[in-house]
Amino acid sequence: MYCKDVPKRVDHEQRRAEIVRALWTVINGRGIEGVTYQAVAGAAGISVGRVQHYFDSKEELVRAGCRAIVERATRTYSERVRSLDPWSALLELLTEPIPRTETFRRGAAVWYAYIARGVVDPEIGEIVSDASRGTVAEAASLLESAHAPPSEAERLVGLSNGLTQRVLIGATTSEEALTILRDEVAGLKARSA
Amino acid sequence: MYCKDVPKRVDHEQRRAEIVRALWTVINGRGIEGVTYQAVAGAAGISVGRVQHYFDSKEELVRAGCRAIVERATRTYSERVRSLDPWSALLELLTEPIPRTETFRRGAAVWYAYIARGVVDPEIGEIVSDASRGTVAEAASLLESAHAPPSEAERLVGLSNGLTQRVLIGATTSEEALTILRDEVAGLKARSA
Repeated sequence: MYCKDVPKRVDHEQRRAEIVRALWTVINGRGIEGVTYQAVAGAAGISVGRVQHYFDSKEELVRAGCRAIVERATRTYSERVRSLDPWSALLELLTEPIPRTETFRRGAAVWYAYIARGVVDPEIGEIVSDASRGTVAEAASLLESAHAPPSEAERLVGLSNGLTQRVLIGATTSEEALTILRDEVAGLKARSA
Repeated sequence: MYCKDVPKRVDHEQRRAEIVRALWTVINGRGIEGVTYQAVAGAAGISVGRVQHYFDSKEELVRAGCRAIVERATRTYSERVRSLDPWSALLELLTEPIPRTETFRRGAAVWYAYIARGVVDPEIGEIVSDASRGTVAEAASLLESAHAPPSEAERLVGLSNGLTQRVLIGATTSEEALTILRDEVAGLKARSA
């Protein structure tokens, strides 16, 4: 049984990702203000000391959870648009945040908790607004590649953000939101042709 | 000193409104999940018993705070548009939520806390989505009065919601958001003439 003496290989990044997922569960149930080391450790099924080993402070953990959402969305988007033309990529960029499943809704709910928190917490606010400006920059770059006015980017991303919010609170359906965004991009494409 | 024996006239609605304002202060500092009778009583400078006298449960108080935001916004809007033509009223409806002052930002931050909470709390979700559907219905009615397609209402309100969010998190300026909304309404007016 020599294995016993070999130190268990711990994948640092994977452990951090597991703790971040437990953090999201806590945020869904108790909000960002309700996050404690105890609650996250409980949700992750590990000790408080273990959580503290990976995250020096509760604030660092909360910020890491916000950055992880941004990174995941960026990765998903990059993979999806790899072989798409600029118009299709733009449509993907604008429609990707619209919640279409319950899991997706829960993820979006955590993101909205961060947006609400970002209004009163400058460090969270910076992560959220940087991500948001990045989306506008990407939209502007795609519009430029498609020979359409990049100045439309802010309006298009604003529309996508607002419709995402409306689907999330149940004020409209994902189908209606997707139709509006598709029509918007198709109209812009027709005018730019 | 006969006044001593006359029961002090307490304006029930005014007392409730004061407690609701204290609630908003607590939400700004600790989030909706951090609301307690103690915290609200402390912010209002009154006893816990007094808060309980006006609100049977913490949940009732939190919901009353959400409804009060909706009522205040509806009242402000109604007063402002009383003598406006449909196009000007539509522009007012869409631009009114864009935060332009710090006080306004704080109010909007509480509203966003309710939106985020509405995703996981059905009772809050219903107040928020009813208000939101009411805004779309009002926009559709104004478009109809202006002989423009009412089907544009959902898109316009979505755009207003998204730009409000973007200003709130600092991803864009209130000036840019207002310009986009004014151009949007002007374009629609030109096409409907």
